[in-house]
Amino acid sequence: VDEEYILDRFNLAGLNTEVPHYQMALDLITDCLEEEIEQNQWDELNNIAKHLYGLIHARFVLTNKGTAMMADKMRRKEFGTCPRVFCEDQPVLPVGLTDLVGQKGVKVYCPRCEDVYHPPSKKLSTVDGAFFTSSLPHLVLQMYPNLVPKKNPDRYIPKIFGFRVHSIANEHRWQDQIKEDLLKKKNLMMAEE
Amino acid sequence: VDEEYILDRFNLAGLNTEVPHYQMALDLITDCLEEEIEQNQWDELNNIAKHLYGLIHARFVLTNKGTAMMADKMRRKEFGTCPRVFCEDQPVLPVGLTDLVGQKGVKVYCPRCEDVYHPPSKKLSTVDGAFFTSSLPHLVLQMYPNLVPKKNPDRYIPKIFGFRVHSIANEHRWQDQIKEDLLKKKNLMMAEE
Repeated sequence: VDEEYILDRFNLAGLNTEVPHYQMALDLITDCLEEEIEQNQWDELNNIAKHLYGLIHARFVLTNKGTAMMADKMRRKEFGTCPRVFCEDQPVLPVGLTDLVGQKGVKVYCPRCEDVYHPPSKKLSTVDGAFFTSSLPHLVLQMYPNLVPKKNPDRYIPKIFGFRVHSIANEHRWQDQIKEDLLKKKNLMMAEE
Repeated sequence: VDEEYILDRFNLAGLNTEVPHYQMALDLITDCLEEEIEQNQWDELNNIAKHLYGLIHARFVLTNKGTAMMADKMRRKEFGTCPRVFCEDQPVLPVGLTDLVGQKGVKVYCPRCEDVYHPPSKKLSTVDGAFFTSSLPHLVLQMYPNLVPKKNPDRYIPKIFGFRVHSIANEHRWQDQIKEDLLKKKNLMMAEE
């Protein structure tokens, strides 16, 4: 996050009710902490500061500057690429599945297949999804329409020895067979009675 | 691969025309190599043996025993899980996109979304796809229909600030705007002339 953004108190309105020890955590983020802190308090304050930074981050990425930075990072493939083979290494954007903190980790959104995936990098997967918000990728793609890739209509076709697998065969044939066998057994048993 | 399978010469019919130094490579695989080999030949023979083992592997996995072992490995999630969030960690099976050796690395097939992905583990991604054949997952799922998961019709819905993104807005609105602007400019220029 831009330091300037954090220093403008207008941008932080309301966040003081979200975390305890708001002022101290903010001082820690902006490197203005002057008080002496005991070791056991340090870990707690560190966690609070991380949480607060995440909340500020969630607001910042939706600003003009934030989306611009995210678009840049996407171009540099910093969030990785789509794991789907037919998306041909399409760069992805981070997305949260919910805007509530502490629910789910961050996922990545592929604009080509328009689906969400678990992030490829371990580092990214430990971040809370709410810190990136559920709106981010769609806002970025609205603002930078040249980042929207051409769709690829190719789909994977399952084949056995070069022959297509019939979709009905694939899913239902065996299940139906089992069902029929069970019905036969049941009928036999009833006939014996 | 089962050692018994390799030792039955019937299973290897035709493979001797696929690799050079076939007999020595086979001896190396089955630990029967008796000849002395120089260091510079060793690397070459090692590569040939790997190739030959891959070809045997491709035949073996399509046998009854091979598919049973693959089904077991799938149950133990040894090939990883589907990276798609809505597939909820569905175990995957390895698949080749082609049956020709040396073309493409192995991919993984998710039976829930019926799509192919880059393998999550680095180790798996260095293996040639042809060594697993393009038929493997579909054959396994035909033979073990209980491994076919229930489909999940949930799809990801892009939202900005909680509102759905209209699919037309998402892709076309901005592009159309640019197009219109360009047309206006062109008309202006023609009017000036």
